Amino acid sequence: MVSERSNGNVVALLPASFDPVTNGHLDLVERAHRVFDELVLGVAINVSKNETFSTEERVDLLRSATKDLKGVRVCAFSGLAVDYAREVGASVLVRGLRAMSDFEYEFEMAGMNKHLHPELETFFMMASQEHMYVSSSRLKELVRFGRNIDEFVPSEVAKMLVERLGGKL
Amino acid sequence: MVSERSNGNVVALLPASFDPVTNGHLDLVERAHRVFDELVLGVAINVSKNETFSTEERVDLLRSATKDLKGVRVCAFSGLAVDYAREVGASVLVRGLRAMSDFEYEFEMAGMNKHLHPELETFFMMASQEHMYVSSSRLKELVRFGRNIDEFVPSEVAKMLVERLGGKL
Amino acid sequence: MVSERSNGNVVALLPASFDPVTNGHLDLVERAHRVFDELVLGVAINVSKNETFSTEERVDLLRSATKDLKGVRVCAFSGLAVDYAREVGASVLVRGLRAMSDFEYEFEMAGMNKHLHPELETFFMMASQEHMYVSSSRLKELVRFGRNIDEFVPSEVAKMLVERLGGKL
Amino acid sequence: MVSERSNGNVVALLPASFDPVTNGHLDLVERAHRVFDELVLGVAINVSKNETFSTEERVDLLRSATKDLKGVRVCAFSGLAVDYAREVGASVLVRGLRAMSDFEYEFEMAGMNKHLHPELETFFMMASQEHMYVSSSRLKELVRFGRNIDEFVPSEVAKMLVERLGGKL
Amino acid sequence: MVSERSNGNVVALLPASFDPVTNGHLDLVERAHRVFDELVLGVAINVSKNETFSTEERVDLLRSATKDLKGVRVCAFSGLAVDYAREVGASVLVRGLRAMSDFEYEFEMAGMNKHLHPELETFFMMASQEHMYVSSSRLKELVRFGRNIDEFVPSEVAKMLVERLGGKL
Amino acid sequence: MVSERSNGNVVALLPASFDPVTNGHLDLVERAHRVFDELVLGVAINVSKNETFSTEERVDLLRSATKDLKGVRVCAFSGLAVDYAREVGASVLVRGLRAMSDFEYEFEMAGMNKHLHPELETFFMMASQEHMYVSSSRLKELVRFGRNIDEFVPSEVAKMLVERLGGKL
Repeated sequence: MVSERSNGNVVALLPASFDPVTNGHLDLVERAHRVFDELVLGVAINVSKNETFSTEERVDLLRSATKDLKGVRVCAFSGLAVDYAREVGASVLVRGLRAMSDFEYEFEMAGMNKHLHPELETFFMMASQEHMYVSSSRLKELVRFGRNIDEFVPSEVAKMLVERLGGKL
Repeated sequence: MVSERSNGNVVALLPASFDPVTNGHLDLVERAHRVFDELVLGVAINVSKNETFSTEERVDLLRSATKDLKGVRVCAFSGLAVDYAREVGASVLVRGLRAMSDFEYEFEMAGMNKHLHPELETFFMMASQEHMYVSSSRLKELVRFGRNIDEFVPSEVAKMLVERLGGKL
Repeated sequence: MVSERSNGNVVALLPASFDPVTNGHLDLVERAHRVFDELVLGVAINVSKNETFSTEERVDLLRSATKDLKGVRVCAFSGLAVDYAREVGASVLVRGLRAMSDFEYEFEMAGMNKHLHPELETFFMMASQEHMYVSSSRLKELVRFGRNIDEFVPSEVAKMLVERLGGKL
Repeated sequence: MVSERSNGNVVALLPASFDPVTNGHLDLVERAHRVFDELVLGVAINVSKNETFSTEERVDLLRSATKDLKGVRVCAFSGLAVDYAREVGASVLVRGLRAMSDFEYEFEMAGMNKHLHPELETFFMMASQEHMYVSSSRLKELVRFGRNIDEFVPSEVAKMLVERLGGKL
Repeated sequence: MVSERSNGNVVALLPASFDPVTNGHLDLVERAHRVFDELVLGVAINVSKNETFSTEERVDLLRSATKDLKGVRVCAFSGLAVDYAREVGASVLVRGLRAMSDFEYEFEMAGMNKHLHPELETFFMMASQEHMYVSSSRLKELVRFGRNIDEFVPSEVAKMLVERLGGKL
Repeated sequence: MVSERSNGNVVALLPASFDPVTNGHLDLVERAHRVFDELVLGVAINVSKNETFSTEERVDLLRSATKDLKGVRVCAFSGLAVDYAREVGASVLVRGLRAMSDFEYEFEMAGMNKHLHPELETFFMMASQEHMYVSSSRLKELVRFGRNIDEFVPSEVAKMLVERLGGKL
């Protein structure tokens, strides 16, 4: 890790489902992007098969929303985030916190991750006030009930969510 | 901030009382030090006047304990941490979390800090399992009751704490 | 809203699943009923289809249990609670809190609801000590294991729960 | 209480130190004012003697800030809030929640209050997102460090806080 | 209960799914075993049918792991833990706490249990630091992703988990 | 510890300020007393000198309130609870939990205590519903405001509290 820093290149991994990307995600991405040389957005290939969007769709929407951010790249990954961090040479894992319950889950996860990959450092960022109550799952509920969510997601995402879920209860 | 990164130089500020420095502090310092180009340890010149050690003593003990860490420097500061961050050119504020109550305080503080200095990014690091229950105030209590605390602080700190507080209830 | 108040008529909405109504619900209803001119109990027509009782049954049991409370009426609703609040002219949303985790969920929900319907005020009421550990789902578990729950629900509800779930694991 | 409601007059008490009143307080006051016929703002005559402003000053600043709100009146009180509620004929106690720790304190307090005055109903309101991290004590700290707080308090309050605390560490 | 104590025989029940037993469970068992004359490990015969191991397998693995602990016996049970406590003559229910969310669930459960069986005393034990982030479900996830979990479970359990879940996503 | 158990004699220590003893304390004492052979109530000789009652008074009031409980004895102690536990041969430390914040403090304390005295087992008991909101400090506040507290403390304690604090703000 010292060597990575010595050549001025700190890689950070921000893993999430991004199903789909919200403005809350993008706020974290932009804030982390200002600090780290390289930021990898890891789209988790989940096994639960409960996703609204396919891995490919989730990657595409996220790439489209972050295409202007130099040093940010989007990749799908399966397996443990700590293993993927190793694969991409990340020395930092970035996680967003929205609430107390996030904290507790992350707290336990960080303990395990430290055990599995001791050199990987986890940094937590607080969600901004305006994104505190916005999650992908809550937005989906709004769409199902016919609510407009344009202010919470990129326009392309809003459009796709309405197509996929609009009025489907 | 982009400019700072472009020349490969991210400065982070870790502000605390360090009254006195513990191994828990040092663990955070070493972990943050691996990620950031420059890490400023800001020793808060408190106004409560309840400190066990003077600002000068706290700075000296911390400097002594971190003297082998390249890129880490120790400074005393007064005023708000966000203002001091601006002064030293820090784009990152590092805070350690030991417990749920820390989280809540920090959560509110981060909200205010974001308002006062929007470009400053706060990163939270979890204390390591073995330092989770170690705080300066708890260690002082142990010393007052005659307990050995050598495993929790640098030896120089242990010696000074015993001199200052040993057996003084 | 001022106009609503000027004619002395504050309508409050208390939305829940009421699957089925418990004495804990009734305690909240009676307490809220003393404060508001009109109290609408909104029985959520859920989409999960995991309910023990049909919407009609849930409405009937709740109506039967609250028939003596003047100014309280029971209606089924679908969609978002904030939208239904608008529909019935409610200026207040009443929510019960039993635990810390309720608090967190409600806290986020209140943030979103304020955004969706800024004039709607959410008031939280603490569950009474004796109802703190009583929830519909816990009572169902007791019934499944053959326990008597007469003290936790109206007698009609106890009878129906036993018929529906008694001894069915 | 039924009689109070029957003549369309619900009195609510919002007790606090108001040392001094902030925009966060005023937000709660305005929101509660829209729901209740009469809203009494009870300025607690504290016994700790740690207040920045005298009871009279706190009452005056609060009166000045709420003078346009019809149905809202400001009074100083000593003793328990539940006793003062009885004195002013309030059937509702309004409390603001900013954080999890508030919740816990209030939760216990509500239990005791219910015991002391069973007919008094406590309603909790969440602080708005923008006031979540603003408390009187935090604002005083900002003033001491020379920060402008005009956006967080009425202008008259900002002026008095600077006179009283500005640059005094 | 007084009579039980008078003959020096306090029976404690530690109910759990044990699906499968982990070193975290064993740590609790060993610690509780030192205090109580008799410790019954109650393997819950769940009704959800989501278990990785059958009741028989879970009992066998637990028996094998605790065979050297005198005064500890393993039994499967269905129904409520409080009812099973009565059946085995236990005057103490032992529960482990790993996190804040455990606390809240247990807190509510203890309230209900006290109501259902007032003479049964619930004692909570904190998980040891090194087991704080280890749960059966997290370990299963590690196994699915091909990680070695030998340090977290008895070797026999590790072997069976790999056979059952290894590489099965 | 094994030897202690083998002769059927488990000693438990319940340390607290008992300033003064409340019915909440007595409820815990009675419940713990039923489980352990010997229960030592350790009255902490605090160094803060903020106590309402002297150590001797606190010991006397507690002894008077527990005089009918065989196997319970009251002692004052200074220093760390873990050291006193060793002194009295206790293998169990009993702590009451009233709230989430208690939990967090105790959680950290248990971590440190385990480190200082690994064979000492800490058991947490939940306060009963009816004592959840009753603490010594809250009762003192009630007395200062002239409230009757007879239902919350032994009558002797109520009398002394009124003499000491009644109407003294």
